Amino acid sequence: MTFLDMLRAAERQNGSMLCVGLDPEPAKFPAGLKGDASKIYDFCASIVDATADLVIAFKPQIAYFAAHRAEDQLEKLMAHMRRAAPQVPIILDAKRGDIGSTAEQYAKEAFERYGADAVTLSPFMGFDSVQPYLKYPGKGAFLLCRTSNPGGDDLQAQRLASVPGEPLVYEHIAKLAQGPWNLNGQLGLVVGATYPAEIERVQIGRASCRERV
Amino acid sequence: MTFLDMLRAAERQNGSMLCVGLDPEPAKFPAGLKGDASKIYDFCASIVDATADLVIAFKPQIAYFAAHRAEDQLEKLMAHMRRAAPQVPIILDAKRGDIGSTAEQYAKEAFERYGADAVTLSPFMGFDSVQPYLKYPGKGAFLLCRTSNPGGDDLQAQRLASVPGEPLVYEHIAKLAQGPWNLNGQLGLVVGATYPAEIERVQIGRASCRERV
Repeated sequence: MTFLDMLRAAERQNGSMLCVGLDPEPAKFPAGLKGDASKIYDFCASIVDATADLVIAFKPQIAYFAAHRAEDQLEKLMAHMRRAAPQVPIILDAKRGDIGSTAEQYAKEAFERYGADAVTLSPFMGFDSVQPYLKYPGKGAFLLCRTSNPGGDDLQAQRLASVPGEPLVYEHIAKLAQGPWNLNGQLGLVVGATYPAEIERVQIGRASCRERV
Repeated sequence: MTFLDMLRAAERQNGSMLCVGLDPEPAKFPAGLKGDASKIYDFCASIVDATADLVIAFKPQIAYFAAHRAEDQLEKLMAHMRRAAPQVPIILDAKRGDIGSTAEQYAKEAFERYGADAVTLSPFMGFDSVQPYLKYPGKGAFLLCRTSNPGGDDLQAQRLASVPGEPLVYEHIAKLAQGPWNLNGQLGLVVGATYPAEIERVQIGRASCRERV
């Protein structure tokens, strides 16, 4: 099954459009686990167990594991999600963005090592930084487009003079992701749900899949 | 010592401007090591030993370690570089770019877990995605600006209508990195050495430090 097949199946089965992010911060864990980085897996697995029949996707954020030397716990969590919710696709939130040869390594990390169904990516370095991920048949890739953080405006909301129609940067990314970059219908977009008007704008075209965070 | 102090000391001591990248690909290792991911440390350490008195910096690329479950070998390599070349700063090539709370985790990974002196970052998500790294006194952060990969043009070489002077995207990034974003003189830029004219353009201002790759 491709990422999109899984997403549609999870939507039908769980009657949901909710993606659960897993950004485990030991300092914020409840009493008993608080401050204990060795409990990252336990904390996340309990959320997975409680939501397996309620979600359309799980989205672990890799930085929270890497900061605590917890890659082994992320591997264990990926396996647990497969067991607890085999119908629910997993998006590895990594926002990688690097040249082709390095992107091949990151794609290997996301899809072979962790077995993710999709990954988040940055479009800043252009198409050859995205292409290696698309070589994995059926895997999904969500490009940062219009993010809802305070600095999202700094670059994404600027207007481009050199592109026909003078789109904003995020509109340009959305068009690339829905057109020439979307070789096999694997691309989606990251657009902050705090910007409903911008979601509307990037929906003018047709993306294959679209994440709302 | 700050990253910049170390860079200047290494330049004086080794009479060099050469940064050695460490992008270990087991499939390309020499006979005896070829294809063996458990030898990533050995391969990189031998390069470090052979170049410790010739370089201004080392730059391990984290993707090559992550793809092979070799974070432990990267930790060991960081410690080895400190022993073999205490005067040479280490730039962790990670090109991270994420919202503030996640950037804090990536900064912790780079500076606390791996003990890097500087890191490479993407500016796509704006200033709050860069700021957490600048909270580590003396650490350096190199922002992607004008990269030399084929897709570097896709976004970086577009002209901005909405910024005074209508700069290209990479010129806009360079100005931000030399102006309002550079709170404590910790920012540098990644500009491909295959684009000498572009290096000239971003040097019109004054960055605190600058990588040429």
